[in-house]
Amino acid sequence: MYAVIMAGGKGARFWPRSRNRLPKHLLDITGGGTLIQETVERVSPLVPPERILVVTAAAHAAEVTRQLPMIPGENILVEPQGRNTAPCIGLAAAFVARRAGDAVMIVLPSDHVVADGEEFRRVLRVAAAAAEKDDCLVTVGIRPTKPETGYGYIEEGPPWARIEGETVYHVSSIREKPSLEEARRLLGLGRFFWNSGMFVWKASVILGAIETFLPAIAAGLRQIAAAVGTPAQDEAVAAAYHSFPAISIDYGVMEKARNVRLVKGDFGWSDVGSWDALWEIAPKDERGNAAGRCAGFAAVDAAGNYVESPGKFVALVGVEDLVVVETPDALLICRRGRSQDVRKVVETLEAQGKDDLL
Amino acid sequence: MYAVIMAGGKGARFWPRSRNRLPKHLLDITGGGTLIQETVERVSPLVPPERILVVTAAAHAAEVTRQLPMIPGENILVEPQGRNTAPCIGLAAAFVARRAGDAVMIVLPSDHVVADGEEFRRVLRVAAAAAEKDDCLVTVGIRPTKPETGYGYIEEGPPWARIEGETVYHVSSIREKPSLEEARRLLGLGRFFWNSGMFVWKASVILGAIETFLPAIAAGLRQIAAAVGTPAQDEAVAAAYHSFPAISIDYGVMEKARNVRLVKGDFGWSDVGSWDALWEIAPKDERGNAAGRCAGFAAVDAAGNYVESPGKFVALVGVEDLVVVETPDALLICRRGRSQDVRKVVETLEAQGKDDLL
Repeated sequence: MYAVIMAGGKGARFWPRSRNRLPKHLLDITGGGTLIQETVERVSPLVPPERILVVTAAAHAAEVTRQLPMIPGENILVEPQGRNTAPCIGLAAAFVARRAGDAVMIVLPSDHVVADGEEFRRVLRVAAAAAEKDDCLVTVGIRPTKPETGYGYIEEGPPWARIEGETVYHVSSIREKPSLEEARRLLGLGRFFWNSGMFVWKASVILGAIETFLPAIAAGLRQIAAAVGTPAQDEAVAAAYHSFPAISIDYGVMEKARNVRLVKGDFGWSDVGSWDALWEIAPKDERGNAAGRCAGFAAVDAAGNYVESPGKFVALVGVEDLVVVETPDALLICRRGRSQDVRKVVETLEAQGKDDLL
Repeated sequence: MYAVIMAGGKGARFWPRSRNRLPKHLLDITGGGTLIQETVERVSPLVPPERILVVTAAAHAAEVTRQLPMIPGENILVEPQGRNTAPCIGLAAAFVARRAGDAVMIVLPSDHVVADGEEFRRVLRVAAAAAEKDDCLVTVGIRPTKPETGYGYIEEGPPWARIEGETVYHVSSIREKPSLEEARRLLGLGRFFWNSGMFVWKASVILGAIETFLPAIAAGLRQIAAAVGTPAQDEAVAAAYHSFPAISIDYGVMEKARNVRLVKGDFGWSDVGSWDALWEIAPKDERGNAAGRCAGFAAVDAAGNYVESPGKFVALVGVEDLVVVETPDALLICRRGRSQDVRKVVETLEAQGKDDLL
């Protein structure tokens, strides 16, 4: 069994901590190591580091290598350009297929948080057994707790099999990110699950699905597969990526495939997609204030705030529902619930050419 | 004519910029020099530095001397303890009387802002002429623009004299800091003026009033006066201050005296008593955001904020009516209108013994 960790994200919404040279998955957001380190640590009891592949951008390969000394250098696959998840997963599948024939591969985002690692691995074991049992595409679905518009939704179909005490389901449909109204409706129906971006399948099965639904990518992957382990590998990857369209595995494959299965996961998952999410998962005082790494903190009639200030003592007076983040060169004050708009700050800085702050 | 600059304040409401070692009047708040430097500069065309006295605390004497190199060392009077304004003014009056007999002295706080220095000096000239003309206590009153509860109010009485084209008035009453309701009423009456804390009188006249209303202080001042310029001066001051009660000139003298006169001043005055006041006097963008000293600033849907961040770029997202102040070791986020409560942060830090932040 292989694990593939996708580490191509930028994470502009975590500005000012996330920067071009240090995107979200390379940050220590929760205090327990960087998100990619936590991801590797979480999956390691299931898959030893020699069989963990990391797919990352050229600009971050050195930092990924530094943060993950246990991962062999040849397991760090570098994408010449970001092309969304379908090429990334195809690239990893080509490597797995070449190295280990028809192994099962677990695909994991590098920048999510999981509270219960034990349960996480138990669910992945079930998913892997399902992928072994049949040539199917297994998704891990999370039971939604709010009408989130930032995720895709997986519709639970009829039960398919009972594996290790867990029911695995057919999938009736996969919906793209819904409107708020639609998200509320899906939440009410009770049979829709968040698409966590975690997948389990045999390398041959996902490559076959790409062959069917994304033939242009499949052609490039064949050329890469032929060059894996030879001096021509880098050039083959570069040539293939040059021609790859940018497309997600969800849109390119999962929404079209008929052999998708659902394993339900309940292990304290968060994609920590914004500063808001960090407040949600952080321990809070009796007035709902949460402090991440912070040199010191005083609240006078303040409630519902998230503060991260490793370098300075912070005093809040009479303020509510703010996100306050301090770094050596920048300071963000954002209303909670508006942290998606931190992207706009990054866009402004890009437009002004303030590269030192990006 | 002499000028006496009172520089004994602590200014805890300007935390984190004001500190025990660097109170408000020693800070460059407006970008044009420290408040005490601006005060000296403002009065200098009227009173040369050799006749400007500064009364300050022992802990700040060195910094005052450093900031005001034009003031002769013997003009910097050091109070062993802070005892509010009556002893401070009495001490200065004793010095003026000893040095210059019955000179007129202008008493000025060291930490106020004045937009129009020319008009300020014109009003002080009128006040000085009034003080010369009769043995009276002249106050400079500011026409109120809002029902401020932080100031005392001076009630305009009948006209007393016409001096240099300006009417000087008798004073019917002086009210201590009113309730909000009372302040609204006084504002509506139109004949009440803010007590700016600026006074003009002959040294002999204020010493006489202290003799009448504050005999315990008068006794100490006589001992100081006898020792001025001798080796016993410091000891006399120390002994007198040890026995002085802490009392303001307003409460101790002005509210009781019958020979008080009012000169109306309209020269863009602010006591900049809190961060709120700084937002009020600062230039603002079209959404009401004001930046003091700031390394850089981006606002996404933000309005009515005051930002001071010399060390860091600041981004505001979706926030309104905040005061944001950054210093090398601390960060304040305060709702505008709540900046009086910054004192509570200081009290908390004192209670916790965090001396490095005080």
